[in-house]
Amino acid sequence: MKKFAKYLPALTWLKSYQDADLKSDTVASIVFTIMVIPQSLAYAMLAGLPAITGLYASILPSILYSLFGTSRSLAVGPVALTSVMTASAVLPFAVSGTEQYATVAILLAFMSGVFLLVLSLLRLGFLTNLLSHPVISGFISASALLIVIGQLKYLLGIQSEGDTLLPLVHSLYLHVNNINLPTFILSLASITSLLLMRRYFATLLKSLGCSAQAIQLFGKSGPVLVVVAATVTVALLSLENMGVSIIGSVPIKPLTLNMEGINWKIVEELLPSAFLISIVGFIGSVSVAQSFAAKRRQDIDPNQELVGLGLANIGSAMCGAFPVTGGFSRTVLNADCGSKSPMTGIISALLILLTLLFLTPLFYYLPKAILASIISISMMQLVSVQDLRNLWRFSKKEASLLIITFSVVMIEGMETGLIVGVILSILCFLWHTSHPHIAIVGRLPGTEHFRNVQRFTVETHPSILTVRIDENLFFANARVFEERLQSLVSQNTAIRHLILMCTAVNMIDASALQSLEKIVDRLADSDVKLHLSEVKGPVMDRLKDSKLLDNLTGQVFITQHQAIQALEDKQTKS
Amino acid sequence: MKKFAKYLPALTWLKSYQDADLKSDTVASIVFTIMVIPQSLAYAMLAGLPAITGLYASILPSILYSLFGTSRSLAVGPVALTSVMTASAVLPFAVSGTEQYATVAILLAFMSGVFLLVLSLLRLGFLTNLLSHPVISGFISASALLIVIGQLKYLLGIQSEGDTLLPLVHSLYLHVNNINLPTFILSLASITSLLLMRRYFATLLKSLGCSAQAIQLFGKSGPVLVVVAATVTVALLSLENMGVSIIGSVPIKPLTLNMEGINWKIVEELLPSAFLISIVGFIGSVSVAQSFAAKRRQDIDPNQELVGLGLANIGSAMCGAFPVTGGFSRTVLNADCGSKSPMTGIISALLILLTLLFLTPLFYYLPKAILASIISISMMQLVSVQDLRNLWRFSKKEASLLIITFSVVMIEGMETGLIVGVILSILCFLWHTSHPHIAIVGRLPGTEHFRNVQRFTVETHPSILTVRIDENLFFANARVFEERLQSLVSQNTAIRHLILMCTAVNMIDASALQSLEKIVDRLADSDVKLHLSEVKGPVMDRLKDSKLLDNLTGQVFITQHQAIQALEDKQTKS
Repeated sequence: MKKFAKYLPALTWLKSYQDADLKSDTVASIVFTIMVIPQSLAYAMLAGLPAITGLYASILPSILYSLFGTSRSLAVGPVALTSVMTASAVLPFAVSGTEQYATVAILLAFMSGVFLLVLSLLRLGFLTNLLSHPVISGFISASALLIVIGQLKYLLGIQSEGDTLLPLVHSLYLHVNNINLPTFILSLASITSLLLMRRYFATLLKSLGCSAQAIQLFGKSGPVLVVVAATVTVALLSLENMGVSIIGSVPIKPLTLNMEGINWKIVEELLPSAFLISIVGFIGSVSVAQSFAAKRRQDIDPNQELVGLGLANIGSAMCGAFPVTGGFSRTVLNADCGSKSPMTGIISALLILLTLLFLTPLFYYLPKAILASIISISMMQLVSVQDLRNLWRFSKKEASLLIITFSVVMIEGMETGLIVGVILSILCFLWHTSHPHIAIVGRLPGTEHFRNVQRFTVETHPSILTVRIDENLFFANARVFEERLQSLVSQNTAIRHLILMCTAVNMIDASALQSLEKIVDRLADSDVKLHLSEVKGPVMDRLKDSKLLDNLTGQVFITQHQAIQALEDKQTKS
Repeated sequence: MKKFAKYLPALTWLKSYQDADLKSDTVASIVFTIMVIPQSLAYAMLAGLPAITGLYASILPSILYSLFGTSRSLAVGPVALTSVMTASAVLPFAVSGTEQYATVAILLAFMSGVFLLVLSLLRLGFLTNLLSHPVISGFISASALLIVIGQLKYLLGIQSEGDTLLPLVHSLYLHVNNINLPTFILSLASITSLLLMRRYFATLLKSLGCSAQAIQLFGKSGPVLVVVAATVTVALLSLENMGVSIIGSVPIKPLTLNMEGINWKIVEELLPSAFLISIVGFIGSVSVAQSFAAKRRQDIDPNQELVGLGLANIGSAMCGAFPVTGGFSRTVLNADCGSKSPMTGIISALLILLTLLFLTPLFYYLPKAILASIISISMMQLVSVQDLRNLWRFSKKEASLLIITFSVVMIEGMETGLIVGVILSILCFLWHTSHPHIAIVGRLPGTEHFRNVQRFTVETHPSILTVRIDENLFFANARVFEERLQSLVSQNTAIRHLILMCTAVNMIDASALQSLEKIVDRLADSDVKLHLSEVKGPVMDRLKDSKLLDNLTGQVFITQHQAIQALEDKQTKS
């Protein structure tokens, strides 16, 4: 049973699930569903799909994650970043609005799902760690900014194309004279009211005498009111005849994967995008899940999260929708609505299904400008200058990494930016470890402690050189280490014994081993013996599997103190 | 002057250069020149160029390196690996033997030279460290084997095409019935005599009563005798009329860079090859230079080596030749001939120039099968099964890396193999560091020492958890670390204080910092305070530039002992 629960985490919480929980979760689900609908529609639009697809993407994914995910709080569905990544991945293959476009988006969701499952199966979740903080920060800021610029076409009621800075700005510039005034006014009004709602809605409810519970429940429902108000306004004034773009009628059957539009070439070319969408989605999701889990002292299993999110994406493809993941704003909303367990994910999925079946006519007059306003406001919060400022103070190099990632995303696109960022962070790290700190040490007089000769007054011996390496020994620094030792010895011809003090060496690989073997040989040529001291247990175990110890001209000492004593004795005797 | 000598290392050794040195270097140069000529011709053939180009490649490069390189022993010229890499880089652009082929090869030499200079200027020599030992070993074995298979066409006197295993074997199979018997016999004879010469020539000289000095000088001149004997045989028996392929007449003017054949597209597509050839050449060269320098307690400056080799390649392009580097067998030969200084590089370059001007008719009857025999024998020594065996014992993972690199080189080609190898070694390393060793530690009773609870009987406190991290904290393990800590705390609700013992943390980056900040927040949510102990000076300096210390819920203790004392006191008081 316990083993089974590892693969189906829902069993754990279902075991202790009470009637009272069901009641409170149902209330939470109803409020959550109403509030999450505009967001879901908006993100589908961001993905370049009919807005209604956002609801499809909120049914099966949410149910599957509730059953297979390990977070008790995470809400899974369409999310801004993965949606816009979907758009830029699908655009090269089809025109937005066509059946082929939907087909490719569905395929992408399916492939992302499979990727996540494969990563889980091969335990390759660690690959997601390659996205360092500066890269993610630069990536998110730039993507959010690109999204806002991309939404201007809806906010102004004009045409624009492209998914990177220059083409977007260029096409906005070309069409700036065609701004649709009603749309523009509607956008201004909705952005203003959304911002006011966010700031003052809870206060307003309070001054109207609402209970604390009601404020907690409805404090964030401001956007819903704005959406309703805007839809009613458009309907009453027939603004759609004045050029205001609306959702319009919604097809009854969901989109499906049209296999005719798919071939291996498309699958192959979508691979990198599917991979990046999976990884970006996964990292965001796990990070949200963990902050919520921490508050309740719960535990997140990242490998099982890969399964949960993988199945959610396959589920999304089966619903005819696009890639999904666990979202920050969705999850906050869910928690604010009083969700106590993943059951809210299941109930709200069913409520969205009911909405789709019976309430889609209500969305007919929903203006696209409102959805664009919702997107723009939430994206502007993701553009963080403060983050860059903090980073700049902490490390100029890492701040530059952020700036480079930001710029490449803006100019070359999200995927290129991400890849460039990852490569540069790995190179930066390798550069750092390939310039290891190497200290010449001596004994603090009267003690058994050894310290850097440059910082302390210590005792040394003219023919014995002790070198402490403050880094793991592996391929990226093996040759540097080789050169540094050779250089130290060639500068000082009195040296007869070189002791490597290995206190800070946690690992040693075959390249470093080879370098050590070369060092032993070369030092022998220079008539210098190489000794080791303070080698850690696991490192010593590795060395025993090699020929280094057989060929070592010197000895291996347990402690540095023993090494110095033994060698000094030998020197005085000879 | 001293500063100037840094950029022109020749000034250092020229300062103390004596007449006697010049005399001995001249003798060494004459012997070296005679012995190195067959090798140089062979490697030019390997590069797909007229054999005589190998002599062009031995003039300016050798002089420039002697002036600008830091090794006193290294001999620079055509080398097997870079020559065959040249062939596989140039083949997609031109047919071997055409003027266009020579043009692209010359361009490649020029580009490699520029790359090396750029690497030196930007101090990016560390990039060469990315080639780990298993990758280099697999790469060299596979390349050497491919070279030998590629030489079979000359040894058997048949046609074959391709530069990877399958096309090579396939085309050999197609032509196996057309073996040219005289060529085959010549090849067999020369391989046998070369092997015998290598083994017994010194003994033979000794038994003939030669002096030790003469043996030292001529012990390795066996190949020269075989070359002379074979050339004479071919000339006397007119074997060229029986299908034995010979060098033939040599054009008087060297090849030049024909700018008409060059466009930006070629330059762009050659970039990766030029880069890889530079790096592979550089690594091999520096490694040879260092082993020779060690014997004489001299020092090699890798950054200046980039300059020396960079200029050598540009010089090679100016001579109308292909990429060059410092070679192992050339350098051994040079040392055996009694070279005492880089002056031999300059003198032998002049001797080769004289050879080119006046002695090329001597090469007319030189059969290509002999050169192929020389190449094949020296390449077979580079195929090392022993290396794989040692590696397998040391680390299965790194041995697999060798096998993968070997296989990819054989099947997909040298460049792909090298790139796949590099990416995999980086991923392996990142995998390793992203699974850091984290130990829960307690106090050894009666001491101030703290050890792993799993290995020692130690004292712990129910509400205090001390965790020691045995790895640097950076992006590749930041999230893993975050998860592990959260998991530890969620498993044990009694914990109120978490101490991170940072003895083995040599660096901390922005991603790890962010994770630490998250951990502080999350632990605060779980009502647990985070403390740090034993933070190293440089790491502490970095932390002071961040907000972590301001937001830290606990304290920073100098030693772990102080931390435990302070917190235990607090616990008993409260």
